[in-house]
Amino acid sequence: MQGKFIVVEGLEGAGKSSAIASLVSHLQAKSIATLTVREPGGTPLAEALRDLVKQEWQETVTAETELLLMYASRVQLVENVIKPALKAGKWVIADRHDLSSRAYQGGGRELGDSKLRTLKQLVLGDFAPDLTLLLDLDPEIGLQRARERGELDRIEQETVAFFERTRARYLEIAEADRSIQVIDAEQPMGEVHQALVNALEIALFGERGYPS
Amino acid sequence: MQGKFIVVEGLEGAGKSSAIASLVSHLQAKSIATLTVREPGGTPLAEALRDLVKQEWQETVTAETELLLMYASRVQLVENVIKPALKAGKWVIADRHDLSSRAYQGGGRELGDSKLRTLKQLVLGDFAPDLTLLLDLDPEIGLQRARERGELDRIEQETVAFFERTRARYLEIAEADRSIQVIDAEQPMGEVHQALVNALEIALFGERGYPS
Ligand SMILES: Nc1ncnc2c1ncn2[C@@H]1O[C@H](COP(=O)(O)OP(=O)(O)O)[C@@H](O)[C@H]1O
Ligand SMILES: Nc1ncnc2c1ncn2[C@@H]1O[C@H](COP(=O)(O)OP(=O)(O)O)[C@@H](O)[C@H]1O
Ligand SMILES: [Mg+2]
Ligand SMILES: [Mg+2]
Repeated sequence: MQGKFIVVEGLEGAGKSSAIASLVSHLQAKSIATLTVREPGGTPLAEALRDLVKQEWQETVTAETELLLMYASRVQLVENVIKPALKAGKWVIADRHDLSSRAYQGGGRELGDSKLRTLKQLVLGDFAPDLTLLLDLDPEIGLQRARERGELDRIEQETVAFFERTRARYLEIAEADRSIQVIDAEQPMGEVHQALVNALEIALFGERGYPS
Repeated sequence: MQGKFIVVEGLEGAGKSSAIASLVSHLQAKSIATLTVREPGGTPLAEALRDLVKQEWQETVTAETELLLMYASRVQLVENVIKPALKAGKWVIADRHDLSSRAYQGGGRELGDSKLRTLKQLVLGDFAPDLTLLLDLDPEIGLQRARERGELDRIEQETVAFFERTRARYLEIAEADRSIQVIDAEQPMGEVHQALVNALEIALFGERGYPS
């Protein structure tokens, strides 16, 4: 049986990495085989692209270039890693996917959602997650958490206004798409993880994992 | 005054590099300032992408990924090098441009021309060459010339059928676009260069450079 494709999304410091650890242990306790991946990256070529996208350049990196590199990385990961794993029955849990581009390049960089949807359709067709869990929080809070974690990369150094636009686009898209569940990521971590597991249970098993 | 953007196109070994040398000396004799560029590449990020595209990978590089990387490189070159040079009044002579993707990824890799035109419009808008000179020849002849030049890269190692599809797409597009001039590249080099200079004179100066 084909595995499920679950994506965790959100701004820097939203808690995606810790969310994924929690989701994986929840699924493993149900004897579900999982594979975790992160974007950009996940194959040798995609990791090389991740380095190019995150590093600083003497030249301007145009919004369009950034967009094309994100999709190049994504296509490699989807075709060479995600699709084969799903086919083998594994559940794939991804740290970011297509929604990140729609929010960051479409919203943050103001390329617009229509361009983003056209490009996605062009290179990925109808491939899409079964469930996306969007960790929503005030960008200032997330950046503060990320700063405590270490140095900020080229994209993390963007202005707060950039992240506000990104957050707003995330929420706009989520409102129109039933496969995206918004989780309040400003709550204490234990509550966030409880909310994630509940959303997963309802969406993919049709029940709550825990009494609420 | 804005410079002109001239592109030289054709299969491997068609004679693009030598054609460009000849065009540049013709323009310089007319006291026109020129800049030559090649694709993929031409900026630090674009050259890094050129390396990624040409090198061999343990994983499959999908046609879509190759396409996205070609456009990422192209956008960096157009925005950071070509447009500023044209604005400064230089004539830019490019070894390959958008038509290469339409022929190689669209034709050779069979992604189709409609996808290619959509992607081009998405990331480059209406930006287009003033003149494209297409060096047309039997792929076997070009590959033989390229082989004599040295080792073949990932793309040059493709099948003859791939290059036949690429050539056919080049010619199809040229037939429908008055800004593309087809030159018979199987002729001796002197005749090819004469034909190039004539096409350039007619297209951009409205006269022949030499009696024919
Ligand atoms: N709900 C939370 N409350 C407080 N701190 C959190 C919460 N979630 C994550 N963190 C902390 O914030 C930092 C960033 O979390 P991380 O999971 O790495 O975020 P992301 O992967 O989304 O960038 C980590 O130090 C993490 O322990
Ligand atoms: N018309 C021609 N007849 C014979 N050999 C040619 C001709 N044009 C180019 N060559 C030779 O073929 C090889 C490839 O030419 P080059 O200009 O490098 O092609 P490209 O840049 O299109 O790959 C070079 O050794 C070049 O001298
Ligand atoms: Mg993380
Ligand atoms: Mg050459």
